[in-house]
Amino acid sequence: MSLSASEIVRALSDMAGPEVVVSDPSKMAAWLNEPRKRFHTPATAVVTPPDIAAVQAILRWANQNHVGVIPQGGNTGLVGAQVPLSGQEIILSLARLDRIRSVDAAAGVMTAEAGVILENAHKAAEEAGAMFPLWLASQGSARIGGVLSSNAGGVNVLAYGNARELTMGVEAVLADGRLYRGLNALKKDNTGYDLKDLLVGAEGTLGIITAATLKIFPLPEDHETALVNVASPEAALELFQLLRARAGSRLNAFELIPHIGLDIQLRHGMLDADPTASASPWYALIELIRLAGTAPGSLQSILETAFEQSLIADATIAESLAERTRMWTFREQMSECQSREGASIKHDVSVPIAAIPRLIAEGSAAVERRVPGIRPVPFGHMGDGNIHFNFSMPAGADPKAFMAEFDEAVHEVIYEVVLKLGGSVSAEHGIGQLKVDLLRQVKDPVALDMMRAIKTALDPNGILNPGKMLR
Amino acid sequence: MSLSASEIVRALSDMAGPEVVVSDPSKMAAWLNEPRKRFHTPATAVVTPPDIAAVQAILRWANQNHVGVIPQGGNTGLVGAQVPLSGQEIILSLARLDRIRSVDAAAGVMTAEAGVILENAHKAAEEAGAMFPLWLASQGSARIGGVLSSNAGGVNVLAYGNARELTMGVEAVLADGRLYRGLNALKKDNTGYDLKDLLVGAEGTLGIITAATLKIFPLPEDHETALVNVASPEAALELFQLLRARAGSRLNAFELIPHIGLDIQLRHGMLDADPTASASPWYALIELIRLAGTAPGSLQSILETAFEQSLIADATIAESLAERTRMWTFREQMSECQSREGASIKHDVSVPIAAIPRLIAEGSAAVERRVPGIRPVPFGHMGDGNIHFNFSMPAGADPKAFMAEFDEAVHEVIYEVVLKLGGSVSAEHGIGQLKVDLLRQVKDPVALDMMRAIKTALDPNGILNPGKMLR
Repeated sequence: MSLSASEIVRALSDMAGPEVVVSDPSKMAAWLNEPRKRFHTPATAVVTPPDIAAVQAILRWANQNHVGVIPQGGNTGLVGAQVPLSGQEIILSLARLDRIRSVDAAAGVMTAEAGVILENAHKAAEEAGAMFPLWLASQGSARIGGVLSSNAGGVNVLAYGNARELTMGVEAVLADGRLYRGLNALKKDNTGYDLKDLLVGAEGTLGIITAATLKIFPLPEDHETALVNVASPEAALELFQLLRARAGSRLNAFELIPHIGLDIQLRHGMLDADPTASASPWYALIELIRLAGTAPGSLQSILETAFEQSLIADATIAESLAERTRMWTFREQMSECQSREGASIKHDVSVPIAAIPRLIAEGSAAVERRVPGIRPVPFGHMGDGNIHFNFSMPAGADPKAFMAEFDEAVHEVIYEVVLKLGGSVSAEHGIGQLKVDLLRQVKDPVALDMMRAIKTALDPNGILNPGKMLR
Repeated sequence: MSLSASEIVRALSDMAGPEVVVSDPSKMAAWLNEPRKRFHTPATAVVTPPDIAAVQAILRWANQNHVGVIPQGGNTGLVGAQVPLSGQEIILSLARLDRIRSVDAAAGVMTAEAGVILENAHKAAEEAGAMFPLWLASQGSARIGGVLSSNAGGVNVLAYGNARELTMGVEAVLADGRLYRGLNALKKDNTGYDLKDLLVGAEGTLGIITAATLKIFPLPEDHETALVNVASPEAALELFQLLRARAGSRLNAFELIPHIGLDIQLRHGMLDADPTASASPWYALIELIRLAGTAPGSLQSILETAFEQSLIADATIAESLAERTRMWTFREQMSECQSREGASIKHDVSVPIAAIPRLIAEGSAAVERRVPGIRPVPFGHMGDGNIHFNFSMPAGADPKAFMAEFDEAVHEVIYEVVLKLGGSVSAEHGIGQLKVDLLRQVKDPVALDMMRAIKTALDPNGILNPGKMLR
């Protein structure tokens, strides 16, 4: 007794207005084409409701009629959470709910609707003299609702936390259309279960976030940035611990990069100059926040101690914005530069930070045994225990043949090492539809049962982003 | 068809051993007498299982036989979550699960079982050269399981976060006896719903926490502590914002104290000397963390700026451990000192921090209108938006008559102001049995429905701490 596509389109037009319903598949590219070009299932319709009442009406109707609803923000997710799976779903874009409801720099809180583009959230905070410290490569198109639903991380998690930690409260429409009003701005509130943290990171499977209260912070006076030569991931770990003890949460970034990344970028002319002090097997990109009214020089002083303790061999401290930018460009081009060397197999994994050296050593060795000549390119947020553990194909290999033969096998090898070390097979990007089967294999079965019980309790008809995260 | 008391005792003895079952009511005082002396319902039995397998067996049996189970740690909770409500329940004490399973200072993580006394967790971290920064007045008897289940706060939330923020993962026995294995130590893990944060703060109504991975931190080099004269809560708020911008998360405490607190303590000889610089309507106790290898003097420099900006009038910086201790003693005696002045009516509330001045002004005025001569004594964790908004009876009043006449009325007045300001009626201490009715009145009804749905999903027979938090 399911509704026909035309019945669905008519109902959506009645509820949200015909001008915000797209039913022509040829006009849906903006909502269907996701960044990885991996998923190609169509949607029955796309609707971009103009207000929360329309979101509520659509969900009430969808729940009664068992129509699957996929909430979508900027369509920047990397695991297919925001695009169709069965083809029977409608996409509900939050793009029109794009109001900053309030910004209070003194109180350290901003209320933004789900459709606010991350970059606009940054601007709103800045205009009020504050900072919303969640930076992603996709910030020009990612929207707050998606950022929160995927519990996005980015480069500043070390000092400020991930999306969950930056969110004080959320407002969300539930499966039956009711509005959960949880927009609080309290640091302490022990009046019941932590519903906010349940909705954040749920990939739209438990409710559709419509707005959030977000933490904003005083603008730092400046940053101190260095690119430091370290002999090994073990040495990098010791250096990290020294920085953590001396700089605490002013440590804003601790990114590990292997020499091969520099080599590739220089070879392909991706850097205008070599940003490092000298050649080294590994580099650590380190950044400290300098708070208002405090003297510069902290990073230099800590690095001097590290030299004295022989933790590091050489380093260069950025002395201009251009030098800082070049260091960050080097880091940010790490993903892209691999494509200049043909195909690569990628993993977004995390382990307890003390296990990073073992992860890199054992993971690289195991994969090299399986695929002779493969080139490990592990890099990323070492300070968060989060390594983008990527592998470039052997020089000169055929990209398609390489991927066809080794993609799955390398995943298996890496995930086995990650799980042995107590790690996670999806540190930042989530589950979506890409990793549903993987999750079922690796997650504690009791945890999966708890998740299913909660999902059924809050969405008994299974209309919210069906088939994502949990089958 | 419910089991008799003797059947229950026999079953518990079979599962956990007769030596760990208490069935004689005259021997249950340690588990029944809670700190506020407010709840007096007996229990059918007390059991202190020796291991996790026994906890699992007891819950499996309780679930099959519909026996209510109250998990208990150190029996220090202030809202009656850990003691009986109907009298039909058994108390399951986690006290014997008191092993520190591992401490890794370099990795910043410690795994402690639920029965570990908070003070012993502190010691274990210290012996490894690190710090577990959750300090409570009850730390000599509070146990980790209860600390987490109540999402305890304490005096260091500002710099380090509350129990939820200090917990990386939990292990818990579910209502049906299955073990949820969630002891991860990952900073980033986007593989499913946030079950950890759901179990933390759930007051044992969704599962019984048996162990947790806790964040530990490098030991600070030192602290800088000052007692600062501020003219008003508004001035205190401006000072707080200056400190937040200049010290970031090194700001470890920002506690507000009214002059009446000093007056009472000096009058009753509770301080060996006046810890303040001079008389002032309000004082702020401020503490910064000084990290290893950094120079002292940050607090002094910030306070100098505050003088220049006329935010503060006078201040004294602790120049010895004795002076620092006196300042903290002054703060810590604030609750106790009120008892020297007869009865008092207490509230543990929070509001968005920018609303603290309004909370204090409007709350005091409204209560003074209702009870002429009553003495407002609002103090506490201003930096967290959390005020212990207490009122001492008018000088010379009859304590019993005062409480009988005004206790409920003053609660109503304060909660109305708190809710108007977007605040919480239980910032730190939770709901337990004390605030179940209040919660039903003030909480978003959709949130309550979500909580009930989750409770039913995870504990369909309602055996876990029945009647607590939700009726």
